[in-house]
Formats: sequence, C-alpha cells, structure tokens
Amino acid sequence: MADRGVDVVVIGAGIVGLGIAWTAAQSGRTVAVVDPEPATGATYAAAGMLAPVSELHYQEEDLLELTLASAALYPAFVESLGVGAAKAGYQTTRTITVGADAADRRSLADLREVQRGHGLAVQPLTIREARALEPLLSPQLSSAFNIDQDHQVDPRRLAAELRSAIDRAAARQEWTHEHSIRQNAAGLLHEHQADAASRVTGVILADGSTVAAGEVIVANGLAASQLGGLPDWLALPLRPVYGDILRLRVPEHLRPLLTATIRGLVRGIPVYLVPRDDGTVVLGATQREDGSAAVSAGGVYQLLRDAQVLVPAVAELELIEVTARARPGTPDNAPLLGRVVSGPGQAAGDIPGLIIATGFFRHGVLLTPIAAQHCLHLLDGTADERWARFRPDRFSPFAHPEGVRP
Amino acid sequence: MADRGVDVVVIGAGIVGLGIAWTAAQSGRTVAVVDPEPATGATYAAAGMLAPVSELHYQEEDLLELTLASAALYPAFVESLGVGAAKAGYQTTRTITVGADAADRRSLADLREVQRGHGLAVQPLTIREARALEPLLSPQLSSAFNIDQDHQVDPRRLAAELRSAIDRAAARQEWTHEHSIRQNAAGLLHEHQADAASRVTGVILADGSTVAAGEVIVANGLAASQLGGLPDWLALPLRPVYGDILRLRVPEHLRPLLTATIRGLVRGIPVYLVPRDDGTVVLGATQREDGSAAVSAGGVYQLLRDAQVLVPAVAELELIEVTARARPGTPDNAPLLGRVVSGPGQAAGDIPGLIIATGFFRHGVLLTPIAAQHCLHLLDGTADERWARFRPDRFSPFAHPEGVRP
Repeated sequence: MADRGVDVVVIGAGIVGLGIAWTAAQSGRTVAVVDPEPATGATYAAAGMLAPVSELHYQEEDLLELTLASAALYPAFVESLGVGAAKAGYQTTRTITVGADAADRRSLADLREVQRGHGLAVQPLTIREARALEPLLSPQLSSAFNIDQDHQVDPRRLAAELRSAIDRAAARQEWTHEHSIRQNAAGLLHEHQADAASRVTGVILADGSTVAAGEVIVANGLAASQLGGLPDWLALPLRPVYGDILRLRVPEHLRPLLTATIRGLVRGIPVYLVPRDDGTVVLGATQREDGSAAVSAGGVYQLLRDAQVLVPAVAELELIEVTARARPGTPDNAPLLGRVVSGPGQAAGDIPGLIIATGFFRHGVLLTPIAAQHCLHLLDGTADERWARFRPDRFSPFAHPEGVRP
Repeated sequence: MADRGVDVVVIGAGIVGLGIAWTAAQSGRTVAVVDPEPATGATYAAAGMLAPVSELHYQEEDLLELTLASAALYPAFVESLGVGAAKAGYQTTRTITVGADAADRRSLADLREVQRGHGLAVQPLTIREARALEPLLSPQLSSAFNIDQDHQVDPRRLAAELRSAIDRAAARQEWTHEHSIRQNAAGLLHEHQADAASRVTGVILADGSTVAAGEVIVANGLAASQLGGLPDWLALPLRPVYGDILRLRVPEHLRPLLTATIRGLVRGIPVYLVPRDDGTVVLGATQREDGSAAVSAGGVYQLLRDAQVLVPAVAELELIEVTARARPGTPDNAPLLGRVVSGPGQAAGDIPGLIIATGFFRHGVLLTPIAAQHCLHLLDGTADERWARFRPDRFSPFAHPEGVRP
C-alpha cells in the first residue's frame, strides 16, 4: 500500500467510525477519518448502555451473539486507550430492570424466560430488595430484576478519548497526512481493472479533492446510502429512527440519585435512567419514525412522565440538556457490516478496497469494539465467519453467491 | 447638569431599564445604561403578555390601576421606536382564558366577578364558541372567557428595538460618552452637603471607574438590594421567584396552532400559551421559590402536561428552548418604584439624584411604559401622585413623613 495516500480512510467519525479508525491505527496502518463534525450525530445523543442482556428483543436474537461478543471486548477496548476506564467514561455499574404495572410485570417475566433460554443471568428482585439497592426507586413498581453484566460508557467521553488516541498514534507514527479531514465525503474513487472487480481506491471529498487509500470504510450512519460511487445494485435500507433524550443534573441533596442503570417498562413504553459519575443522569429515549429531526414536546413529556413513575425524585432534578438525533435503523435492526460482493458481470468475490459499517440502530456504542475488530480482521483477511450474516449486501436484489468470504 | 458626565445613568438593561433609558433619551437627556449582559435576565424568559385583565389577582387590586395605565400607554410607547409595531413584536391579539375542571370553572367565574366589579370586559364563551375561535382547543374544557383587551409583545424583540433606538438617539444627539456600559455597577457615588440630604452623583463600576450623573435610576432587578451606597435603613425586600418557560415551534401542518393567547387553569395551576407571528409558541410558566436557578425537570413536565390538557396538539410541537429565570418578587407583588425619602438626621425630602425601579415580579414587560413615564415625570418634577403608593421605601423601618412628594 506504499503507493497510496493512506492505508485506511474511514468515512464518518461517530463512535463506530472512530473505533474502527483507532483499531486500524493500532495495527500499524495509517488512517484518515472524514467527517465535517466528528461525534455530533447519534453518538452525541446516545446514553451508552452496554446492555446485551436487557437490550435483548424478541426477533432480534440473531444479534445477541454479536452484542455479547462486543460487550466482552469492551474492557480491553477501553484499556487500549491508555487513559484509564474512568476517563473514557466506562463503568461496570449494574442494571436493574423494573416494570410499572401488571402488564409490564408480565412482559418482563416473559422476556426473562427468553434471556434464561440464552443462558443469561437475570435475577428476580422483590421491590423491597430493589429499593435496598436503589432507595429512590418508587415503592409502586410491579417487578424488578438485577442484571450484573449490563454496564455503561459515556459516549461523548469515549469519542473524545478515541480522537485523542488517534491523534497520539499519528504523532508517534509520524504520519505526514491530515488524519482528521473536516469535510463531507462526496463519493468513492474507483479503479477499473480488466477481468476483475472494480477496486475502490479512495474518497472524493466535498471540495472535489481526493484521498487515495488502500481500503475505504463507510461508517457515516444514515448518510451511507447517499454516498456516490457505491454499486447501483447495492441497497442500504437505512431509515432514521429519531430519539429524544434528556440530560439532568442531580442537586447535591439528592446525590447519588441512583448507582445502577434503571431500565423500565411503563405501561408498555420503555424508559431508562443512566447515572453518570459527574452527578448527571441521562434519561431516554423515545423512538420516533415521524420524520422530525427536532426535539418532540410530546416525547419530552412522555420521558419525564414515565421516569417519575420509576423514580419520583426525577421531578426535583435540573433539566440541563434536551437533544434529538436519528439512529440509523435497518429492516432487521442489525448492522450492515462487512464487504460487498462484486456485481453482475464482474469477477467473483468481493469488491476490493470497500468495507461498510453502518445501520447500528440502538446498538452503535455497544457494538463499536466488535465492529472495529471485525473491520480489522477484514483488512487482515482473517474475518470471523459468524459475522457473515451481517453482510451489508443481504438486502440487495443481486444476492451474493454462496461461499463468498465474509 | 452640564458639569456631569451624563444626565441619567440607568443601572440594569432589562426591559424596564431600557424603557426608562429610551424615554429619558427622548426627552433630550443624555443617558448611559450599565449592564454586563443587557436583556439576558427575566426579560429573556418573559412571555410578554400585556394582560391587565387576565393578570388580575385577588389582593393585588392596587396594581390594577397601574397595569391598566401601562397597557394604555403601550401603543404609543411602541410607536415611539419608529420601526412599526410588528418589528417591535407588539400584537393586539386577544386572550382567551379557559378552565379544565369544575373547580377551575368556579375559580374563573369568581375571578370574572372581581373583573366585572372593576368594569373590565370579560365575555363568557361556550366551549363551542371558544373552539370556533381556536379550533385546536380541547373539547374537554370546563369554561372559557374572551378578553379582547389583553395583548402581547415579544420582550426579546422589544428589548432589541429599545437598544437600537437608544443607539440612534446617541448618534443623532452626538453623545460623546459610552451609552452602553458592559459592566456591573458596584455602588453609588454620593456628595455630602451641609444641612442637606446627601446627593447621589453617579455610579461606581465594577472596575473601579465612575460615571458621574445628574440622576441614577436603579433598575437592575434582584441585584438592586446588593448595590453599594444605598441608605442602610432602606429595605428592598426582593426575593427570586423562579420560572421555567418553554419555546416551541409549530410544524407547518399545524399552523396556526393558535391565534389568541390561551391562559388556562388546570386543576388550580395556571399555564399559558402565547402564539408568536413567527410560528413559535411560548409556554409558561412555573412559579418556584425553591432557590434553584436551573430549569426544573418537574416544572417542564407540569407545563407540558397542563398545556396538553388545554391544547392536545402541543404534543406534536418541537421543543426548541427551555429557560429558567428569576423574577424579582416583593411582599405585595407590586414594584418598588420612585424616589427614596432622606434618612433620619437629614433634611426633609427625598434623596436627590436617586430613583429606584425594581420588583416588577410577573409584570415587568407590561409595566415598562408606565415605569418609564413615571421616571421621566420624577426627573421633570411632575410625578403622578397616584403612584406614590409604589414608593420603594414603603417597606423600610424608617417610614417617610407624610406629604413627601412622590
């Protein structure tokens, strides 16, 4: 790759793109990240629950192997930053799931059967036991479960530390190129080869300039499907699932409001409270497919209403931030992750030089380490076959032939 | 006054201070306004209802004459800015008051008897009639009244136009001094006179410099009581009454959400919605005396909850701003407005060179024109006796002697 600008260009500096770039940099590759505003999209809003157990949904069980694998990678991933877990916002605090009414109790009990069927540890608590752990939980709850293995990270802090780590790698390895390119990517550069698949050779930037690269990794969330130069036949069926999310400050006399993450079901609607070590709490999140990127008044109302059902003292907190962002959803709520098979009339195999990593929906923060590891293995040609089911071409009319490597 | 820096220094560039400064400037006086951050306090939060009728409260009936007088001055006050009413944010849209439940209906009916007793026009509406005027009002309301004479102004726009008008007066009159001094005032300058009351002769600024002035007008809200150089015996009993207030944007398909200001009583709690001509709505306001200057999560919840009782479509609006500010409250909820009597051992009469204009509580925007007019008349020595009951020394242990001019 000595004849190229950089070894790897990552389009998109959300948490996933930054994780991929950092992991590639650690492997000794030169990287550049292309994003006009790093870490200001879904990453900026995300609560950062690392919760493969409580996040398990019916009909998304295919994802469980991936989310568990990523959660297992988290300690080493954070450790690799060399700043300590706390500075990166990583905390191994427990999660308590709670139900508000009788129907919520039944839903959580049913979910627990699914969780147990997968060998996951979910421990029933009486409301008294739950309140012994978290005294500010409402006494009116219908059910509670303890989940020791669901943790949290602060995505803003983690993104900041990933950017710093990439900066330090650039300095240490004496990169001569700009590694944080504050522009949009307009499209992909291609090199057409006789009797072979067209190779992706870099990125065309919004200002018309180009960055040559050995590999291009498309990790710009919802914008991925608008990128120029992707194969015409490749469907990246991304849809915006908007979420409203609040940040609150706990007044001194109420600290700590909570020590565990609380995930509740209130009359069938999910709501969560994630306590940070700086005395703030993240309260989220709505899921809206109404096409509105603005904060929803009704969404904010619902969050405050339902959070008070779980923790009445929420009414006494200070509201310090109200944010809405879009998550990149896919038809099966699983990511679009991997290489893309060559199109009709081209040589068999994958398009060289191109990797897709988008569509992480609610799971972007949790899945960052496994996305980064999988991309590294794809670069090395040693990818794990298990993740072939998340290939980004699985929704495309031109299905890839059997036996193509992941 | 030729030997002084300026004719008038106004401490505080909220809506009241700016109104006073503008009116003084129009009289041909040179003025300077002292404020580190003009129009960022209660003015920034205020909804700007000009509502002497619907704002009438039991036991605040002394205020009514003042609020009616100020509302009557508003058209000419806005006209004096020379930019047109719309640019200054002034609108003569009606107000509709509504009750949610049976107790709210009784409260509004009782209030109407008081309003009628004062000769105020408050017209009962059926819910059907109210919804003919405002189709997005809930059909579940218990009562409604029309008040044609309660209007609105956008305090941010009005403050901006007052500042521009003062700038233009400075240019036109070729003032040679800085007229917008972006500092805090530390205290008052005094000149002690034999056999006479100590005269206030200017302001000491936070950086230690001074501004000499013929008259100093203290209009810096809650900070007035901390100002150095006020008489020791003068009690300015100001307390912060915090309010949370929301700004929302109406999506295109719901415009206009409302054409009238809606003031509701929902299970005894007041809430209002003020529609602006830019497609936004102001939703307010809580009244908290909890000592917290931050936005209250419980307050925001209550506002969104109660507003939806009146206008269910509020759930579909975009939440664009959440603000909390303190209003300067007084024991009788009336302003501290006027000159201050000289203390024990001094010559009879008022302290020369000093006027106080603070404590406007919920009424600062409405009372700006009358405060400005009254201050001008005090400067001219032609003050209206009716406003002597709002003298700022009325709560002081050293009561002023009978017959002191207002």
